[in-house]
Amino acid sequence: MNEERLKRQLEFLKEADKLKTVFRQTYLVDGSRRENDAEHSWELAFMVILLSDYAGEKKLDILKLLKMTLIHDIVEIDAGDTYIYDKEGMKEKEVKEAEAAGRLFSILPDDQCAELKSLWEEFERRESPEAKFAAALDRFQPLLHNYYTRGRSWNEHGIDSNRVLNLIKDIEEGSAVLYKAAKDLVYRAVDAGFLKRGS
Amino acid sequence: MNEERLKRQLEFLKEADKLKTVFRQTYLVDGSRRENDAEHSWELAFMVILLSDYAGEKKLDILKLLKMTLIHDIVEIDAGDTYIYDKEGMKEKEVKEAEAAGRLFSILPDDQCAELKSLWEEFERRESPEAKFAAALDRFQPLLHNYYTRGRSWNEHGIDSNRVLNLIKDIEEGSAVLYKAAKDLVYRAVDAGFLKRGS
Repeated sequence: MNEERLKRQLEFLKEADKLKTVFRQTYLVDGSRRENDAEHSWELAFMVILLSDYAGEKKLDILKLLKMTLIHDIVEIDAGDTYIYDKEGMKEKEVKEAEAAGRLFSILPDDQCAELKSLWEEFERRESPEAKFAAALDRFQPLLHNYYTRGRSWNEHGIDSNRVLNLIKDIEEGSAVLYKAAKDLVYRAVDAGFLKRGS
Repeated sequence: MNEERLKRQLEFLKEADKLKTVFRQTYLVDGSRRENDAEHSWELAFMVILLSDYAGEKKLDILKLLKMTLIHDIVEIDAGDTYIYDKEGMKEKEVKEAEAAGRLFSILPDDQCAELKSLWEEFERRESPEAKFAAALDRFQPLLHNYYTRGRSWNEHGIDSNRVLNLIKDIEEGSAVLYKAAKDLVYRAVDAGFLKRGS
């Protein structure tokens, strides 16, 4: 047994626990409070288990996809969560998150540092089928929660349907089925009065 | 696209969101509050990514193991979390959880209902190498959190080192390395005064 290796892995897990204290704009389905990044990551991984057939023709590496969803937000421990509609915040996001990745993953043994950093970078680039599908889920999940909470987060931030429709275009690259479902949800949200109609 | 299939999957995910409201006795590493089952499941899956080499000779199916950790507590949506040292509660646990599994997984399309139910049952039986390793992580994780919070949950419930040492014996079947690390942690917790020495 390599004690130094286990020590670094446990040190990383201790640090990773902070993800449970990074809160997002999204509310839980029951509306009781905002959700945190650890809960969000768990839900995304669960969505991989249930929904990955919707990636279409492409044969996805499900193991890679699960790992990717589990780690995709870990950099927010240092960088914080940036609200997707916050234009200024989104500009700084990339630099802050790259710094965070450098610090966090280097706590791990070298081989695992390299594996997870590469997986996180793959997610960020949105080029591989797995990264595109993970990104699609990352857009689809808050949409579901917004719908279930009668547009609570949208309304708090004055978001209208044009902005939502513009944002969810990204889903199409990952899954045509989920993109269609997402658009339907936006139209239903507008009809139900949960989301302001874009002018 | 099979709309009925997607509808059932989304209905299940909506129901699964309730796992974020099932709180455990374990505190976050920073001690700020108890953690919930969704956060705990995310952490266990992360531990799979980092620690699965410690299963020893056995070659584990990591994809199965990740799915298993992600769903292992889902039945607690109906059955609630039972504190591991609560003898009376543990007796009723099995019946309540089996009922919960019946209700929850049947929300899913039949093939996914069968897959996840079977995976959950495999976890509960603790017979396969994957189930033994997942169970080892499920014992090891709260131990780490107890240590980091200076034995907070142990002390709230008057737990001594004998009871902890007895409980963590289960870890050995899943991982000799983690069992050794767990025992070391208990001895260190006693030495540091975080855990009452058993008489």
